Amino acid sequence: MQRSLIILSVFCGFAIVSHHVAQGGTAHSRAISTTDRLHALRVEMERTGVDVYIIPSEDEHLSEYVAPRYKRRQWISGFSGSQGVAVVTSTQAALWADGRYFDQAESELDNNWTLMKSGLATIPSIEEWIVEISQVPLTISANPFVFSINRWKYYLEYFSNHGDTFIQSLPDLVDIVWTDRPGAAGTEIIVFPLEYAGQPWAEKVTAARDRMQSVDADFLLLSMLDEVAWTFNLRGNDIPYTPVFPSYALIGHTSIKLFLNTSQVSTEVTNHLKPANCESHGMCVEIAEYEMTRNEILSLDNSSKVWMSSASTTYGMYSAVEEARQIQTESPMKVPKSVKNAVERDSMKRAHVYDAVALIEYIIWLEQNVPSGAITEKNGAKRLEQFRLNQSRSKGLSFEAISASGPNAAQPHYGTALGNNRNLTTQEIYLIDSGGQYYEGTTDVTRTIHFGNPTEFQKEAFTRVLLGVIDVETAIFPSSLDGNDIGVLARLPLYEVGLNYRHGTGHGVGQYLTIHEYPPGVGTSGAEGYPFQVGMFTSIEPGYYQDGEFGIRHENMAMVVPADTKYSFGEYAYLTFEVVTMVPFQKKMIDINLLSDFQLDYLNKYHAKVLEVVGAEATLQDKPSLLNWLQEATSPITRNAGSALQTSAILLSVITMFHNILWY
Amino acid sequence: MQRSLIILSVFCGFAIVSHHVAQGGTAHSRAISTTDRLHALRVEMERTGVDVYIIPSEDEHLSEYVAPRYKRRQWISGFSGSQGVAVVTSTQAALWADGRYFDQAESELDNNWTLMKSGLATIPSIEEWIVEISQVPLTISANPFVFSINRWKYYLEYFSNHGDTFIQSLPDLVDIVWTDRPGAAGTEIIVFPLEYAGQPWAEKVTAARDRMQSVDADFLLLSMLDEVAWTFNLRGNDIPYTPVFPSYALIGHTSIKLFLNTSQVSTEVTNHLKPANCESHGMCVEIAEYEMTRNEILSLDNSSKVWMSSASTTYGMYSAVEEARQIQTESPMKVPKSVKNAVERDSMKRAHVYDAVALIEYIIWLEQNVPSGAITEKNGAKRLEQFRLNQSRSKGLSFEAISASGPNAAQPHYGTALGNNRNLTTQEIYLIDSGGQYYEGTTDVTRTIHFGNPTEFQKEAFTRVLLGVIDVETAIFPSSLDGNDIGVLARLPLYEVGLNYRHGTGHGVGQYLTIHEYPPGVGTSGAEGYPFQVGMFTSIEPGYYQDGEFGIRHENMAMVVPADTKYSFGEYAYLTFEVVTMVPFQKKMIDINLLSDFQLDYLNKYHAKVLEVVGAEATLQDKPSLLNWLQEATSPITRNAGSALQTSAILLSVITMFHNILWY
Repeated sequence: MQRSLIILSVFCGFAIVSHHVAQGGTAHSRAISTTDRLHALRVEMERTGVDVYIIPSEDEHLSEYVAPRYKRRQWISGFSGSQGVAVVTSTQAALWADGRYFDQAESELDNNWTLMKSGLATIPSIEEWIVEISQVPLTISANPFVFSINRWKYYLEYFSNHGDTFIQSLPDLVDIVWTDRPGAAGTEIIVFPLEYAGQPWAEKVTAARDRMQSVDADFLLLSMLDEVAWTFNLRGNDIPYTPVFPSYALIGHTSIKLFLNTSQVSTEVTNHLKPANCESHGMCVEIAEYEMTRNEILSLDNSSKVWMSSASTTYGMYSAVEEARQIQTESPMKVPKSVKNAVERDSMKRAHVYDAVALIEYIIWLEQNVPSGAITEKNGAKRLEQFRLNQSRSKGLSFEAISASGPNAAQPHYGTALGNNRNLTTQEIYLIDSGGQYYEGTTDVTRTIHFGNPTEFQKEAFTRVLLGVIDVETAIFPSSLDGNDIGVLARLPLYEVGLNYRHGTGHGVGQYLTIHEYPPGVGTSGAEGYPFQVGMFTSIEPGYYQDGEFGIRHENMAMVVPADTKYSFGEYAYLTFEVVTMVPFQKKMIDINLLSDFQLDYLNKYHAKVLEVVGAEATLQDKPSLLNWLQEATSPITRNAGSALQTSAILLSVITMFHNILWY
Repeated sequence: MQRSLIILSVFCGFAIVSHHVAQGGTAHSRAISTTDRLHALRVEMERTGVDVYIIPSEDEHLSEYVAPRYKRRQWISGFSGSQGVAVVTSTQAALWADGRYFDQAESELDNNWTLMKSGLATIPSIEEWIVEISQVPLTISANPFVFSINRWKYYLEYFSNHGDTFIQSLPDLVDIVWTDRPGAAGTEIIVFPLEYAGQPWAEKVTAARDRMQSVDADFLLLSMLDEVAWTFNLRGNDIPYTPVFPSYALIGHTSIKLFLNTSQVSTEVTNHLKPANCESHGMCVEIAEYEMTRNEILSLDNSSKVWMSSASTTYGMYSAVEEARQIQTESPMKVPKSVKNAVERDSMKRAHVYDAVALIEYIIWLEQNVPSGAITEKNGAKRLEQFRLNQSRSKGLSFEAISASGPNAAQPHYGTALGNNRNLTTQEIYLIDSGGQYYEGTTDVTRTIHFGNPTEFQKEAFTRVLLGVIDVETAIFPSSLDGNDIGVLARLPLYEVGLNYRHGTGHGVGQYLTIHEYPPGVGTSGAEGYPFQVGMFTSIEPGYYQDGEFGIRHENMAMVVPADTKYSFGEYAYLTFEVVTMVPFQKKMIDINLLSDFQLDYLNKYHAKVLEVVGAEATLQDKPSLLNWLQEATSPITRNAGSALQTSAILLSVITMFHNILWY
C-alpha cells in the first residue's frame, strides 16, 4: 500500500488570502449539511472565548486510521478523507487537504466550507491563514490530545510571535456538541496467541525495563496503539483494518498499568495479564479505565522521570509532566516490534501464502470476467475481499484496496470510494493494491495487469518498474545501511530513460497489526538512521504513473535475511532480502530485452518458487484450476530464441556450403 | 585524493584516563624537542591564569591546509600531521590524532607528549579528559579565532556544566612564545585572468548582494580563503598546494572591503579591484590590513545585520557581533563557486588533459624502471612531480601525492613523509593518488597498477572497484538528487561479494583552488541537501583495502552534465556525468567476466576517448612514445573469444559429423 510522500511546494508569500470555494451544485452532490454542527461549535467557541478552533484528523494516539468515535474532523466538515485539518472561526470554516483529496473534498464539503488546497504555492499554511484573519489579537484553541508535542509547541510559538494566544480546550469542543458521537465501548479484546507472537509479553516488558534503566527512567508511557497491542500480545477490533484498541500503558520498574475501556476486557485477558507469581517480579498488569491515564501520570511521584517518546506522544499527555522530568527519546518498543522473531517470521510467510491464493483467484476471475465488461473497480474490489475472506485464516482486510483502472491508476492513492468506478476493460491497465489480516501476519501486495494488448511504452514502464523491484530485492549490503541508503536502486531503471515516481519505495508492516510500521522501509525518511536488521520486513513498491493514462506499481513484501557472500570485509554482517509475497508478475507485460541474464534468472526463480509454495497450498485447498493457471503463469520466460536461431542459421549455411562443396 | 571519513567508535565511558605514551627511543627518532616550547607556554599560561590550553590545527579561516605561520599545533607538539589537537596543562601535554596519524605521531612526538588515539573506545575525548584532570574548578582557554562557532559554544557549555571555565586567550598564547614564527608577508597576490575565471568579480558580488537582500543582511563577511579568492578573481601562493592568501572580505550593499596583507598587493590588483566608474554602483573594493577585520566589524552600525556563515566563521569573528544582529545561514558563495561556468568547465577539462600527459608519462617510466628495483614510493612521487612541473601550464601540485606500494596502500591516507618508503616491485600493487594545479583547473586522480602478475583476488577487487566507478559515472538521475543519494552505487559491486571500503566516494574540487570543495561529492555527508547541478565537478573514487597486503583505488574527476533521456517525467532535469580525467585503467588487472556488455562497452569507449584526447595532446607536445603506449593501453578489451570458440567447436563437430555421415 502506498504511504504518502507528498511533495509540498514552498509557500512563496501572499498578500491576500485566496479562498478556493468549491464551486457549483454538482460538486457538492455528496455533501452532508454542516450548518447545524458549525453553529453548535461556534456557540461553544463563544462561550469559552475561542476565536479560532483547529480540528485535525488524528486521534489521541496520533493513529493513521482512527475509530469512528474520533473522526471529529470528518463530523464537523463532512470530509471523510483520512488526512486533513479543519479550522473554524466565527464566520469562516476552512479545510486543508493535500492533492490526493482535492476531488473528494470538493465533493464532500458543503457551502459552509472553503477548501484550502495544501501544497499549491498560492495557498497559505493553516497558521499563516489564521494570523491574517484579524488585526486584533486572537484566541486560538484546539484539543491538545490530538496534537503531537512538536506541532503544538510550534503553534504556541508561532501564534505568540504574531501577538495571538494559543490555548487548550478540554474537553474537545467538538465532543461537547457532537450529540450522536459513537460510544467508547468496543469489541472484546483478545489474547494474541503465543504461537503467533513468539515471545511472552513479560519478556518484552523486561527488555523495556532494561532500556529504561539505561536512560534512568522510572516510568515508560506507551501511547501508540500498536505498541501497546504488540507489547502485551493483545489485539482489538475497534479501528477498521487495524486490530488495536484504545489504550495507554504505563510501565514502571515494579508496576505495569494498562489503561483501556475495561468493558472490553474478558477474564481471559485479565488472566493473561496476571500470570502466576507475577507479584514476585513486578509483572502483574493492573487494568485501569482509559480516561484515568492522565490523572495517573499527574499523580506520579514528582521526583520520578517519565519516558514519553516525543514522536508518538500527544501534547496533552506530555504536558502532564514537567519537561525536566521527561525523557523524550523514541519508544524502546519501536525497533524491537519491527524486528520480527523467528516465530513471527515463519508466521508472516504463511500469511503471504494464504493471501497469494486469494489474490491469484481474483486475477483468474478477472481474466475470465473482464472481457464481458461487467467488472468495475468497486465490484472487483468487493470480489477480491470475498476471496480473502474465504481463506479460513482470514481476519479481514488490512486496508481499503486501491482498485484502479486506466487513468484512475495514475493517481497513486486513488480510492474507489470517491472515484468514478471505472469499468475494467481489455483496453486499459488495471492496478490492484490490497492486503489482508491474518493472525499469521499483515499483507500488502500490488500487481498490475493488462487484459488485452499493452502498448510498447506500457510494457517498457511495467518492465522498468519490475527491474527496480528486482534490483532492490537482489541487493546485498552491509548491515550499517538503512532503507534510505538503498532507495535509489528502485529508481535507476526508470531514471535511465527519464522516468520516475513521486512516492517512497517501501514501508514496514506489522504482524497482525498496522499496515504501515516504521522504521523498516526503502527510500523513505522514516527508515533513515535505522540500519537494517535480520527479521525486519519492508514492502518494495516502485511505480510509474502516466497522468491521465495509466498507473503501474509492483509491490512485494520482503524480509531482511543474511547474505551468503564470498568474502566478509568489516565488522558488519552482509544482508539481502527474501521475498515473502507469492504472486506472479504478468509475463506478457515484460519486455525481456530490458532484463539482464541475472535479472531474468532471478525472475524465473521467483516464479518457480511461487509455483512451488502456492501450488502446494492450492493442492491443500483443493484448487486444481488455480494450480493449472499457476503453472502457466510461472513457466520460465526465455529469450526470444534469437541467438539459438542465429546458431541454427549458421549451421544451416555451413551444412549447405559443405553440401555444395561436396556435390560440385 | 581521499577526503577522510573517519568512522569513530562510540566512546563507551571510562573510569581511568588511559595514557598511551609513545614508547621507547626509536619511535622518537624524528622527534623535535618541545621542552623549551612547553616551558615558555606554561609560563604564559600561569601569567594569564590559564590551567589548560587547547591548540587545534586550524588557522583563522578553518582551512584544511594552513600556512607555516599558522601551524601552532605543529610548533608546540612537533607533530606535523594535518589534523590533531594539542592540550597543555601545567604538568601534562597530550595530542589527539586519529588512526591515519598514529604511526606518524608516535614517531614525531617527544617524551613530553602523550598520544591520545582518537577513535579507540578506551580513549576519552578532549573535553572528557580535561574535566577529569582536577577536582578543583579549572580555567581552560584557547584562541577563539581558530575554533568554529559550534565547537567553541559546545566547549563553553560542556566545561560550564562541569564547573570549569572556558575563556578566550588573545593574542594566542602560542604566538607570544613562538619567537621564530614565520612572518605574515606572503608572495604577491595575482589577478586570476578572466579567460579562466569566466565571470567578472563584480557579477559575483552583485549576485551575493541579491542574496543578502533576500535575507535582509546589511553586510556579508567572507571568511573562507577560497571564497574570497574565487569571489574577487584573485589567487595567492602562501599555503602549500592551495593558491589562496590570508584575507577576509566584508561586502555591504554599497561598499566592499578586502582585508589582507597589503604588502602582497600590487598595482595590478588595486586596479583590478577598482574598475572604471566603480563608485557609481558601489563596486570599488577598499583594501585594508588583514589585522583590522575584527575592528571593522566591531565598528559597524549597531543596527546593521551581518551575515556570517555559521559553518565557516570562527568564534572569534562571530563574537564581534551580537547574535541578534547575525544571519548565520551558509555563505552565498558556497554553491555558486561549485557550479562551474562554461569557461571554467572547458578550462577544467583542458587541465585534466595536461595532467593526464604527466601521469601517463610517469606510468610509462614506472613500467620501464620498476623491474630494476630502484624506484621507491618517495623517488617515484618526486619523478611524478617533475613530470607535472614539465607541463608548460603547470602551477605545481594540488596536494602531496599518496604514493604507496603493497601493504602501505592498504592505508587509504598513507603519506610517504612518514612511511617506510617501500620499494616498488613487480610483486606488489602500487597506488598513486596525486594532482596538479593549473590556471585551467585543479586535478586529482588515482590509479592502481601491478607491474607483475596479480592474484585472482587482486584482479577481482580491482575490477569490482572499477565497476563502482563505472556504475556511478553512467548513472542517470533527476536533478533532485544529491551526491549522498547515489553513493551506494559505487559500493554495490563490492557489497555483492562482501567487500567494502571505509571512506567517502567523492568530493568536489576547485578551479585553481582547493583540492576539496563542497557541496559536490558522492556518498559523503558534505553533499547532503545540495542537489546536483550541471557544471558541478566531483571525484568518484571507490577503493578496496586489504589490511597488510594491498590497496586499490580508482579516482576519476567527473562533471555533471544533462542526460539525454528517451522520456522526461517530472519537473526536473535528468543528469549524468562526463568524466574529465583522461588516464587509462590497467587492462591486465580487469577480470572481464565481471563486466556486463554495457560496462565493457562504456570502458572501451572511455579508453577510446582517452586515446583521442590525450593522443592529440601527445602529438602537440611531440611525444610519440607516449602516443604509442597509449594506443596499446587503450585498445579495446574483448571477451576471451569464449563464445566464438564455442561456435567454432560446434561447427567443427558438425562438419566432422557431416563428413562422417558422407564418408561412411
